[in-house]
Amino acid sequence: MTSAATPAYRRLSVEERRVQLLGAALSLFAHRAPEDVSLDDVAEAAGVSRPLVYRYFPGGKQQLYEAALRSAADELELCFAEPPTGPPTERLARVLDRYLAFVDEHDAGFSALLQGGSVAETSRTTAIVDEVRRAAAEQILVHLGVPRPGPRLRMMVRTWIASVEAASLIWLDEGKRPPAAELRGWLVDHLVALLAATAATDEETARVVTGLLALETAEGPVGTLARRVVPVVSEAAHLL
Amino acid sequence: MTSAATPAYRRLSVEERRVQLLGAALSLFAHRAPEDVSLDDVAEAAGVSRPLVYRYFPGGKQQLYEAALRSAADELELCFAEPPTGPPTERLARVLDRYLAFVDEHDAGFSALLQGGSVAETSRTTAIVDEVRRAAAEQILVHLGVPRPGPRLRMMVRTWIASVEAASLIWLDEGKRPPAAELRGWLVDHLVALLAATAATDEETARVVTGLLALETAEGPVGTLARRVVPVVSEAAHLL
Repeated sequence: MTSAATPAYRRLSVEERRVQLLGAALSLFAHRAPEDVSLDDVAEAAGVSRPLVYRYFPGGKQQLYEAALRSAADELELCFAEPPTGPPTERLARVLDRYLAFVDEHDAGFSALLQGGSVAETSRTTAIVDEVRRAAAEQILVHLGVPRPGPRLRMMVRTWIASVEAASLIWLDEGKRPPAAELRGWLVDHLVALLAATAATDEETARVVTGLLALETAEGPVGTLARRVVPVVSEAAHLL
Repeated sequence: MTSAATPAYRRLSVEERRVQLLGAALSLFAHRAPEDVSLDDVAEAAGVSRPLVYRYFPGGKQQLYEAALRSAADELELCFAEPPTGPPTERLARVLDRYLAFVDEHDAGFSALLQGGSVAETSRTTAIVDEVRRAAAEQILVHLGVPRPGPRLRMMVRTWIASVEAASLIWLDEGKRPPAAELRGWLVDHLVALLAATAATDEETARVVTGLLALETAEGPVGTLARRVVPVVSEAAHLL
């Protein structure tokens, strides 16, 4: 009985314990603003003592928050990885589905971090968020086949990423309406439209788009959007 | 000689003095992070004593920062006002020109405020920034003729505004390249493309676009974009 009564946490390795504490912290930060989470809450959620939490995170809540954010950022960057094969919009849809599942799971913590004004926000947390944005842009450019794009294409990709971030915050703010799959469809259509408009005045993007179109199918989002946009464009006949 | 030696600031009314102090603060906050501006700097820039600054802003630097931000936000919202006549993309171009001039003028202060991690950031400063975003969205919807839009159109407008904000920050970060007029052209094209894509699957937006297209000219941005996008779309013939 003595051995069974030994608190379970004694059996974890240092790394396992760290992962467990970060997991407990992330769950709490996901549903409350950082200022509303105490180290006691984290200790209780992990089923350990407060001093144990301090042993792993001597910098207290701010250090724990930054470590939890770092771990969430790593998880999010993994969502972006997608094999560069098949119709590009299908790859994009899969990445966005994983991204929106992440947003759904991290919920209030995601909003608190990105909406500004949080007491836990520092130049370090900002740097982590910026790194995730950069990783997102790099992944898209890999799929476009232009790791070092010109200013116009690069600006377009980065502004689309900002718009996805804004859409996620609006989505959370509006009680996760519309359903994630519908929002994903809108965001795919946005990028397709921006690529088409950018291709119209930027030669590099025009070459990229030609390559991408060859990989798309009539049933996919580009085919569907193209067929539906024809009547809209035909209303602009007086401008052609 | 006694009267001439009287410091000039004695002659200002309370409101004039307040405006003068806010102007001095805004100039300083425009070029340095809030943490690098002291009340002594503001007093010196305004040519007054430190106690006088405290008399007007007893809450010290944070109060002065928030008042300066409030005044900048009011100025920015005035930029959005545009008579609802003439080709819509020309109205948009004029608003964006004024907006980019504001970004150019407020420079480092604009970045510090929006990039997060600033010590001067609070829920109050965040609320002011959100109010400006809301005012921008409302103005666009007035010009689209749909003050109470459905979720799809509203989301599209709000994400475009977020992308304009991101473009401004990237523009400042990259030494204000490309020239503001070129960036403005890109941003107009983005909104036109997003409207077209949204009209393809949203009836309300389709009606809005029909009305807007009737007001555009062949020489304007929509005509130019439409002619240039035709060869891009023709490459998607296998998808139609």
